Amino acid sequence: MPATSTDPGAVILTGDRPTGPLHLGHYCGSLRNRVALQHGHDQFVLIADAQALTDNADDSGHITRHVHEVALDYLAVGIDPELTTICVQSALPALCELTQLFLNLVTVARLERNPTIKEEIQVRGFGRDIPAGFLCYPVAQAADIAAFRATLVPVGADQAPIIEQTNEIVRRLNRQVGHTLLPEARALIPESGRLAGVDGRAKMSKSQGNALALSATDDAIRAAVRRMYTDPDHLRVTDPGRVEGNVVFTYLDAFDPDRDTVHELKAHYRRGGLGDTAVKRRLETVLLDLLAPIRERRTAWADRPDDVRDILRDGTRRARGVTQATLEAVKDALGLYRVGR
Amino acid sequence: MPATSTDPGAVILTGDRPTGPLHLGHYCGSLRNRVALQHGHDQFVLIADAQALTDNADDSGHITRHVHEVALDYLAVGIDPELTTICVQSALPALCELTQLFLNLVTVARLERNPTIKEEIQVRGFGRDIPAGFLCYPVAQAADIAAFRATLVPVGADQAPIIEQTNEIVRRLNRQVGHTLLPEARALIPESGRLAGVDGRAKMSKSQGNALALSATDDAIRAAVRRMYTDPDHLRVTDPGRVEGNVVFTYLDAFDPDRDTVHELKAHYRRGGLGDTAVKRRLETVLLDLLAPIRERRTAWADRPDDVRDILRDGTRRARGVTQATLEAVKDALGLYRVGR
Repeated sequence: MPATSTDPGAVILTGDRPTGPLHLGHYCGSLRNRVALQHGHDQFVLIADAQALTDNADDSGHITRHVHEVALDYLAVGIDPELTTICVQSALPALCELTQLFLNLVTVARLERNPTIKEEIQVRGFGRDIPAGFLCYPVAQAADIAAFRATLVPVGADQAPIIEQTNEIVRRLNRQVGHTLLPEARALIPESGRLAGVDGRAKMSKSQGNALALSATDDAIRAAVRRMYTDPDHLRVTDPGRVEGNVVFTYLDAFDPDRDTVHELKAHYRRGGLGDTAVKRRLETVLLDLLAPIRERRTAWADRPDDVRDILRDGTRRARGVTQATLEAVKDALGLYRVGR
Repeated sequence: MPATSTDPGAVILTGDRPTGPLHLGHYCGSLRNRVALQHGHDQFVLIADAQALTDNADDSGHITRHVHEVALDYLAVGIDPELTTICVQSALPALCELTQLFLNLVTVARLERNPTIKEEIQVRGFGRDIPAGFLCYPVAQAADIAAFRATLVPVGADQAPIIEQTNEIVRRLNRQVGHTLLPEARALIPESGRLAGVDGRAKMSKSQGNALALSATDDAIRAAVRRMYTDPDHLRVTDPGRVEGNVVFTYLDAFDPDRDTVHELKAHYRRGGLGDTAVKRRLETVLLDLLAPIRERRTAWADRPDDVRDILRDGTRRARGVTQATLEAVKDALGLYRVGR
């Protein structure tokens, strides 16, 4: 369910690395929240292609193609460019300038202690051969957040250190200039948590082959549900079954709008007499109903590439104004030498 | 004596961190070379305030004041804004954008192995608390050199690793895009080497209190020569004296235009019968003759602050065109997503 924001004046910054098609995990954890939050908040969604390059430097073409694909995913789920500013990171030079200033306010030791970085270094097997840009990306994220003067940043629970790092830098800068030049940000952690993969593993991820793309066809949805992980000990329909860790129920919890029916199905499954096939048939319907209109809107936008480009151009233009103004304010507050244009 | 360049088509990039007034060491090692090289080369001189902030983040006001002071020093020694483009680093966003792209092409391990960085970490006593910006500054320098498409970079012998690092990045980028997108650079190491401090220590440095500023008054010059380190064993005029390591002779070698007389003085000093006072009197004259017109030109420019600002504005504007064009070429070659303006 969408995370609730309590601050109507909040500026929200969120975004994605354009490394592949967005999937149901993104929808559950963030995309549908953005659709809800865009009403009554100033929301910026950043397509973080520059950040994606920090560990994909050799494959910039792949990243570039997915800028457009991710924009299609956004429009498909109902992120409305009239309500949300969708923008492209690499086209916002103020973010780089602010990153460079912020890098002087953080020690290398502090970056290496960042739990997110530590974990990702391990997952990616970088060791000491970590690209310098990757080590520094939490500082670039801090610059993103600060540049938009974002006060609310929807992130997964594992990404909370990013906000801590941002606020450390912001406080140090504010202390140095003697006033609250930049606001601190607050993490907005979705209540629903991270969606498991269709195979039952903790994280849905394209690279692990356990994801269901937002653009999935009906057949792909049916196939995914068919092979979905349930309760391995639930051998006969009459056996009592486990609901916890049973991906089919996890997904019903996440996506079935009829909470009462899900509640009843769980009770029935637990006491026995409800087969996997019946529960899967319900989930299949729920997912087809959810994804069919998304896929249709996606196809319609895909047929209008110039309009999508215009949306990114206009959003980026607006973002350029906002981020440039913050950069100028920071430069002025630090008293940097100012050369006329 | 000025280093000789052998490539008339070369683009030269050089510059200084504006951390304090430039002194005789800068004049000997680089400034007078620039005055010579500006004829027949496309020369850019970068006032590296952004780089100075990497280890002076707390004192941006000090750096900013010295942007103007360093510009005065340049104009005073005869760097001619009609022949040399003088520009301010922090006003060139393309340098930051290129730095961010380059950071993805270098590993943290490689940065930590940089001998210049290793030494400076030690000298500054940073340890693991080195600012991230300081660790990354060789990448920023590589971006500077690449952005200006510089092929010739006058540096001290100890700064050669900077050029190596630049060329590693340039080669990696050229390999990735499949053609020579950016030129490699060559270090131009001055023949004269580094000027010793007036106290005989290897390096003239304001922080060590053994420097003679270009703006020094006649009295300050006389006082510096008076207390200058000679040969501690040369007690009486009749004693034979040592010329090696004798700072007075080092300076005569560096600045006395009359080579023959210096040669004779050395021979006389070695065999005995020439007093320190006499040699110092000659050096005093040489330095007064050298520095008086520099100081006068400096005072004249200092009286025209708006003209100095205009020179920096015009130079930075030209530099903006050059560096922005390089950045666009790199982005196009990497196929980054292009948002219209």
